[in-house]
Amino acid sequence: MVSIEPSKDDAFLDLLLSAFGDSVLLGESIPASCHSDWTGHAACRPLALVRPTSTQEVSKLLQLCNQHRRAVVPQGGMTGLAGGAVPTAESVALSLIKLSGVENVDQDAATLTVRAGTTLQAVQDAAIEAGFCYPIDFGARGSCQIGGTLSTNAGGHGVIRHGMTRDRVLGLEVVLADGRILDLMNSMIKNNTGYDLKHCFIGAEGTLGVITRAVLRLAPPQRESRTLLCALRDYPAAVSLLHRLRGTGLALEAFEVMWQDFYAMSCEWQSNQSPLPPSYPLYVLCEVEGDASHLEMVLAAALETGEVQDAVMASTIKQAQELWAIREATGEFPVKLAPINFDISLPIAKIGDFVEAAGKLLTHRWPGIRIVNFGHIGDSNLHLTVDSNSLTENTSATHHAIETDIYGLVGEYRGSISAEHGIGLLKREFLHHSVRPEALNVMHALKQTFDPNNILNPGKVLS
Amino acid sequence: MVSIEPSKDDAFLDLLLSAFGDSVLLGESIPASCHSDWTGHAACRPLALVRPTSTQEVSKLLQLCNQHRRAVVPQGGMTGLAGGAVPTAESVALSLIKLSGVENVDQDAATLTVRAGTTLQAVQDAAIEAGFCYPIDFGARGSCQIGGTLSTNAGGHGVIRHGMTRDRVLGLEVVLADGRILDLMNSMIKNNTGYDLKHCFIGAEGTLGVITRAVLRLAPPQRESRTLLCALRDYPAAVSLLHRLRGTGLALEAFEVMWQDFYAMSCEWQSNQSPLPPSYPLYVLCEVEGDASHLEMVLAAALETGEVQDAVMASTIKQAQELWAIREATGEFPVKLAPINFDISLPIAKIGDFVEAAGKLLTHRWPGIRIVNFGHIGDSNLHLTVDSNSLTENTSATHHAIETDIYGLVGEYRGSISAEHGIGLLKREFLHHSVRPEALNVMHALKQTFDPNNILNPGKVLS
Repeated sequence: MVSIEPSKDDAFLDLLLSAFGDSVLLGESIPASCHSDWTGHAACRPLALVRPTSTQEVSKLLQLCNQHRRAVVPQGGMTGLAGGAVPTAESVALSLIKLSGVENVDQDAATLTVRAGTTLQAVQDAAIEAGFCYPIDFGARGSCQIGGTLSTNAGGHGVIRHGMTRDRVLGLEVVLADGRILDLMNSMIKNNTGYDLKHCFIGAEGTLGVITRAVLRLAPPQRESRTLLCALRDYPAAVSLLHRLRGTGLALEAFEVMWQDFYAMSCEWQSNQSPLPPSYPLYVLCEVEGDASHLEMVLAAALETGEVQDAVMASTIKQAQELWAIREATGEFPVKLAPINFDISLPIAKIGDFVEAAGKLLTHRWPGIRIVNFGHIGDSNLHLTVDSNSLTENTSATHHAIETDIYGLVGEYRGSISAEHGIGLLKREFLHHSVRPEALNVMHALKQTFDPNNILNPGKVLS
Repeated sequence: MVSIEPSKDDAFLDLLLSAFGDSVLLGESIPASCHSDWTGHAACRPLALVRPTSTQEVSKLLQLCNQHRRAVVPQGGMTGLAGGAVPTAESVALSLIKLSGVENVDQDAATLTVRAGTTLQAVQDAAIEAGFCYPIDFGARGSCQIGGTLSTNAGGHGVIRHGMTRDRVLGLEVVLADGRILDLMNSMIKNNTGYDLKHCFIGAEGTLGVITRAVLRLAPPQRESRTLLCALRDYPAAVSLLHRLRGTGLALEAFEVMWQDFYAMSCEWQSNQSPLPPSYPLYVLCEVEGDASHLEMVLAAALETGEVQDAVMASTIKQAQELWAIREATGEFPVKLAPINFDISLPIAKIGDFVEAAGKLLTHRWPGIRIVNFGHIGDSNLHLTVDSNSLTENTSATHHAIETDIYGLVGEYRGSISAEHGIGLLKREFLHHSVRPEALNVMHALKQTFDPNNILNPGKVLS
């Protein structure tokens, strides 16, 4: 932590305090949860934490900080995994926590209007209460804030059916770096009136503006679904099964591919409870909405062609939970492994090859290295995890070398170094593997246009 | 048509000819189809028409025009309805017609890579041939080009289920005003690597860059569906029926609401063939994919509550076509009426009120005016049509006054003056009814960033 230089900051802090009073926290009173995100990376106490209660206050704060060239770091629930909301010692952390609440649910339009500081869980609950569902979902639902999910274009479990966060957004309210309030609170599905500005801010990690409110599209309520675990002989069979399920009119809610390394380890952790023998190269956990007999027919056909080698369908909720527990071993990674996590995406056809190539590359350089793989392959998303406990030299230099190798390989495959977690601080130096120089130049030009003084989350995404 | 001043243009034309040879057409050899779009508005022969055969040639052309500060008007199939591709006498029209063809279909990823000059029909055909469907569809499919559909974020029939064109795009290749080629040819569903630049160009009507290639998401092949015509007592019943159908797990392919004025007129045109009596205030034509008995159960429940007053379900393809013929009377509008078309969108709950308010407003000022209404209300889209033959003073000043009234009312309802056709030239002066001044300022700033010399389709969308 860098100490504050009072001489330099006093005048500015006086201005902050006189403008925002009790909404400002300083020094020790700033909770440690605002020092870093879930990665714990580069933890640092900001100069001040401001918690505005209205869009107008956010506007006033940005105006002031812009005038005084003060960095502002927007913060949501601090559950990010890329260091995107980590403050610096000279910056003002802007927490949206007091700008919260679901403002209304429009039953006719199936939309929900919400303030940025509301948790994802609260949005999901309000949707269910109104007879709908908000289908973006992931582990941090109870802590993360909807503004954070918008700023990072969060993904999660339901993407295969319902898309990313971007796909759920109809309207936004955004405060620009100079304090101007941009009212883009559209509530209509069709609206072709000039440039669709909201997309500039979704996924921009707070570097182009601060999202304060949003209009979100709701989905129909979730219906009963079936859980199915299949054993496969190879990766192409998984792609073929995906294709088969999609062509049947059944609604695919999840298609989680686990490689043998992952499956065997997870079953071992579940006291060797293994619904299918751990001898197959690949396993797919599917969640499918629709008629059970229809699904059984599709499965029978896949078994007959050899596309699926063996399968088990849950017939009770408990059985379904047991199947999901295998995939959810990822929750135990931080306890049972020392994980280096990769959240990458690749052209679907190439994911099998990539897993093999990455394994060879790392094993060649670090013999004995332990790698486990699973992915939402319908979304082109692979989560490759290295257990750094398996390294003979477990240093940050080795970690960096592993990252450099993997992201380099992702670049060769024309994949993405960040499927759903964003760039933040942690992936910035690798961005060129996925983004061409001309596109990087245009990103810098947009940053310059929206935030000429570089006060909004400086150093995140772009250097 | 403005005549060319040779003295001023000769040197530039020499450069064009020496750089592009046979790809340049001048004077009489420029086909009349390039003088205006389907509206026929402001028809004008451009200084030259250039038809590049590669992205590199597009790049070279823009570089040259940018150096010489020449306006470039990108043209697709010229089927637009907003004047967005209409050239001026001093401009270079850039036709993408020779940059065409489906480059490949990735069966595993369910994506299609295509050049901008390819017709929508050719894309649909290639998708079907590969066992998929490209679900964007509308009347101009055989003439419009995919680049035009991207630049205008085209809508059409399938939006209720599959979204707008924007929702089908994974990747783009774009040539910027100064000739830089922007490779954003992503093929992955999850990809959070910085700002998602493609959205700047989709729907920007060629004012920020020229789209040359795209990666599109395909949908599973279309399955058998049922066609249903329902008679309703009022607009809230239509919203309620929409809600009911969406909550059942049935896939809604179309939900076309016809007001009595529209329905009665159309039945009259079909020699008074009227599957349901024309005495109800509202009719809904639904297309639903899924089990017929399931749909019948849902319909029975809606009849019981009075939400639906009467209904008829097609049991043969011929019957389905007859039901669709009622809605497709719009195709005969240009022949049987002198239509002033409004393509607007409104918050779904308010569409019924709006139709009533618009009717009162226009009838009060122009007694005897004939108005017919239908809409894709699930998409918030209303098509209100005025038959200008019903006006006692059928002048362009009256047309303008009607537009001013309707767009003003749209603004009061916080609706959109363009649901799917775009702004182009024809709606530019009304844009402020749907876009707030701060947002307009940001649009101008983006234009300045991407095209500082204002050479790309100048005067379209923004003045």
